[in-house]
Amino acid sequence: MKSQKKDFPVSNVRQFMETGPVVLVSSEWNGQKNIMTMGWHMVTSTSPSILVCYIWNKNLSYEMIKKSKECVINIPSVELAKETVMIGNCSGRNTNKFKKFNLTPEKSNKVSAPIIKECFANFECKLVDSSLIKKYNLFVFEVVKAHIDIIPKLKFPKTLHYRGNGLFMISGETTSKYRKLFKKEMLEE
Amino acid sequence: MKSQKKDFPVSNVRQFMETGPVVLVSSEWNGQKNIMTMGWHMVTSTSPSILVCYIWNKNLSYEMIKKSKECVINIPSVELAKETVMIGNCSGRNTNKFKKFNLTPEKSNKVSAPIIKECFANFECKLVDSSLIKKYNLFVFEVVKAHIDIIPKLKFPKTLHYRGNGLFMISGETTSKYRKLFKKEMLEE
Repeated sequence: MKSQKKDFPVSNVRQFMETGPVVLVSSEWNGQKNIMTMGWHMVTSTSPSILVCYIWNKNLSYEMIKKSKECVINIPSVELAKETVMIGNCSGRNTNKFKKFNLTPEKSNKVSAPIIKECFANFECKLVDSSLIKKYNLFVFEVVKAHIDIIPKLKFPKTLHYRGNGLFMISGETTSKYRKLFKKEMLEE
Repeated sequence: MKSQKKDFPVSNVRQFMETGPVVLVSSEWNGQKNIMTMGWHMVTSTSPSILVCYIWNKNLSYEMIKKSKECVINIPSVELAKETVMIGNCSGRNTNKFKKFNLTPEKSNKVSAPIIKECFANFECKLVDSSLIKKYNLFVFEVVKAHIDIIPKLKFPKTLHYRGNGLFMISGETTSKYRKLFKKEMLEE
């Protein structure tokens, strides 16, 4: 698959994250690369671009990201649904997930963790606050570099949104028809 | 509109919240009722049922919920899109939002904040941790009682998912077709 990524403003990461998609978090520590599936995350600021993520302390990624202080948040489209579910149902302790699921680690610009080439959006993240990890399993990341596939406006790739118990909601259409109801200062352009 | 709500297990709130919908947060303090529109929230536990929510400290709801230590998180379906946007574009300081937007406050079971009858899901919340409010604007709520409209399985109401800049993604279908890929212990039944 030919990569047709472009740089994307980190302050606009909310376009993709605020809708609540399941994401793939890639990390690297001590020469090992790993991937985890994550559904519990939120935006808390757009400038700087801050994402707060819950990572369970039993996951290998918890240790790897706590130590490396970096990760990449990659968004899979629905075409990667099977891989996304299966990545969340095995452990990096006994599985090379890039190899097993035929995913391509690409070099990031600003962090050591790899980008997952097959995902349509890749957000390079640095851990900027570790004070909530021990008590809450919450990692506060700043997105320092963002890449996305070239996507026509309003035609966003379909994403997976978990409902628990094996059920997913698949994202529907994006609409601008309510935009006229916003106060001007709430909009970007 | 006749209310056809049923009680719902608080541990299953993720079915509705984890997909990332825009919600309406209702509160009450000193005899005043208010509503805010909120898009920045996450699940961090299912049992107890914990939701972490970002509430901007310039909003009236911030003060009201900080003082009352309670709120109700209500999920509007797309039929309430206009009200949801307009509620987010005015202030309770000079607007009675229930009256202005013709919404019905109903008595909750376990908190003083009112349920918004016209929303299909209502989660009564108590503030269980206020230590992240001052620094992060993060409120840690436990859902203590949940109500939902009677909804056929897999036919969830369409919800609004904000992309910033006036754009919304509307939720699509819910599917169980990837359920067979999960390990049994990851599923509820």
